[in-house]
Amino acid sequence: MPISETWLLPDGVADVLPEQAQVIETLRREALDFLASRGYQLVYTPFIEYIESLSSLSESNQDLDLATFKVIDQLSGRLLGVRADMTPQVARIDAHVHPQEGVARYCYAGTVLHTKPQGFNTTRAPLQLGAELFGSDSIDADVEMIDVMLNLLNTVNYSEGIHLDLGHVGLFRSLVKHAGLSKAIERHLSDLYQRKALPELAEFTATLNNGQDFYVLGRYASDLDTLESKLSAEIFTDIAFKQAFDALKTTKAEIQARWPNLHIGIDVVELRSYHYHTGLMYAVYAPNRAAPLAQGGRYDGIGEHFGRARPATGFSCDLYALSAGQFETIAVVVAPKGTQADLIQAIQQTRELGFSVVQLLGNDDIQSIPHATHQLVKASGEWTVKQI
Amino acid sequence: MPISETWLLPDGVADVLPEQAQVIETLRREALDFLASRGYQLVYTPFIEYIESLSSLSESNQDLDLATFKVIDQLSGRLLGVRADMTPQVARIDAHVHPQEGVARYCYAGTVLHTKPQGFNTTRAPLQLGAELFGSDSIDADVEMIDVMLNLLNTVNYSEGIHLDLGHVGLFRSLVKHAGLSKAIERHLSDLYQRKALPELAEFTATLNNGQDFYVLGRYASDLDTLESKLSAEIFTDIAFKQAFDALKTTKAEIQARWPNLHIGIDVVELRSYHYHTGLMYAVYAPNRAAPLAQGGRYDGIGEHFGRARPATGFSCDLYALSAGQFETIAVVVAPKGTQADLIQAIQQTRELGFSVVQLLGNDDIQSIPHATHQLVKASGEWTVKQI
Repeated sequence: MPISETWLLPDGVADVLPEQAQVIETLRREALDFLASRGYQLVYTPFIEYIESLSSLSESNQDLDLATFKVIDQLSGRLLGVRADMTPQVARIDAHVHPQEGVARYCYAGTVLHTKPQGFNTTRAPLQLGAELFGSDSIDADVEMIDVMLNLLNTVNYSEGIHLDLGHVGLFRSLVKHAGLSKAIERHLSDLYQRKALPELAEFTATLNNGQDFYVLGRYASDLDTLESKLSAEIFTDIAFKQAFDALKTTKAEIQARWPNLHIGIDVVELRSYHYHTGLMYAVYAPNRAAPLAQGGRYDGIGEHFGRARPATGFSCDLYALSAGQFETIAVVVAPKGTQADLIQAIQQTRELGFSVVQLLGNDDIQSIPHATHQLVKASGEWTVKQI
Repeated sequence: MPISETWLLPDGVADVLPEQAQVIETLRREALDFLASRGYQLVYTPFIEYIESLSSLSESNQDLDLATFKVIDQLSGRLLGVRADMTPQVARIDAHVHPQEGVARYCYAGTVLHTKPQGFNTTRAPLQLGAELFGSDSIDADVEMIDVMLNLLNTVNYSEGIHLDLGHVGLFRSLVKHAGLSKAIERHLSDLYQRKALPELAEFTATLNNGQDFYVLGRYASDLDTLESKLSAEIFTDIAFKQAFDALKTTKAEIQARWPNLHIGIDVVELRSYHYHTGLMYAVYAPNRAAPLAQGGRYDGIGEHFGRARPATGFSCDLYALSAGQFETIAVVVAPKGTQADLIQAIQQTRELGFSVVQLLGNDDIQSIPHATHQLVKASGEWTVKQI
């Protein structure tokens, strides 16, 4: 390979240079400190695991399996996966490594790798930061998690114009069960919902059990009041359906009470990660961005793979995406060479003020630090910092 | 795979639970903040790169190549490596991505992966933190780097009993060149030095050009004064040898002046990473630890692979190793359920004091938070934090 190409990076990975790295570092600290204040305890999870351990979600989520880089373990001869999502790892910790009774709250921040970008023009190496709450199936837990997600985005300066989307896989799922539909029909309906294909939906549902309810679900997916009035009385006698509907309604009301100015949208047939989630789903969007800033939901039973099924809810975000387009100028003070006590003391004091201070090396002059912004100079016997 | 085994982790990787993760997180921040104050600018490097980019060191260091996990890039069909060392990546940034004129200082912190543990009972996923200085071949640069390394260890509470080892690959290398020895003899001598096999060394060097100097180098490797008196006058006429000897002597004196109580050892035939380094080498050891706390050295020309050879010196350490055995208890305050203003305010104030505060969920009582250390209780109309 010619030298001229050795610096090329693969698509979807990038260096982060100081002006942006500083921004991400600050976001990371603010986010983790905020989560700590809310009782979410930091864990570091391994970068590689046996593929069987990482697959707790991928059994129902083939995308995750396809996104996972695999390597052979030279120590055991077994297949290892490079983490593509930290959620299954935190579930493993909750289930086995750190099996607390009661409610456990964890947070994490780290790079995950994807074999291919997960969307248009996105990275293959997100810096995933997230929080998970295990051991509570109450609506309070979902409300707390959404509240934490919104506060976290606030902490890192996303507040203006954001909106929250709420969904619940339980409505469609319990309706399918209630109507006794086959997997094939369930998939076809799901596809019609995703495509918002209302005429087709009307035609297709005309012949189904509870067909009108399936149509209403798709037609009025974004409006809980209209749904409540248009859905059949019969379907509200289904306990699972009623519980899902009430959970969505209560969550919306509780979040709106805490965030009176927040725009909250509802979509009961938004079924992204339908197979992964088991209840409420939530995502926060910013204007002019296709991908959510943060998203999550309930995935009860995730720990079953590790021998301990518990209620669970959580969200995650990508710190690279959150920091996109933000840069910070770094002030660098250049000090002359020397070890005399007054100079060393002045350098020390300047550093304590929060400046980066470098001393000249060898026979270098200030030209050797072209990115310098300030200079430490002696004037009238006093060392002072001067802008360049 | 039975559920009972899905939680097993591969050898050499581990979860880090909150009590230790908190310690590492603090070390990481203190170390990066310290490095920033000294002018080392943070960069994030990619987790995967084309194998050709990662191999700038591995051409001369097969160990690094063997330590690198390889995967196929599904986007390009090319071979990718998972970073096993961040130094070549920072060299790539200096050479190509961010090619500053003059002196550039960078720091980084991130997980690297090794196919096999690099020592006895060590991790395969060190949390590598390091600093690199490009663009200065002066002794000042090495002295700064060693001083920064010592200060960084001080910052993270390693000061008592540590000692510094200094070496310089230039002495042996220039002596070999001066004597016109073959590669095979060079390797054999290097092996005798590593094994400290003095009788064999005496016998073998008896027949070599400059044989007595090679013997003296091995016999008095740890004492610069004795070396100076016992080595032949001839070898000091070799400019490369003289420069290396003087660099070692000057560096030792300069560091001792800055750190009068530090124990500084010399080993001119300690040739670990001989093929990688080009000048001074340095390592810091703590009592009762076989592996160094931090180590580094000069590796001029590393950027040549990317089309820009520059003088370079730097060091790195493993934050997991530095944090070993340290745990921090996390104070968790439990607050009752509720959204009344005085409670919310009390929770907010307690969080601002630095506590983790969790509110009870659903119908939970305090038993649901078995790791709680404190409780927020109302007494005489005032909310107060009480130890449990």
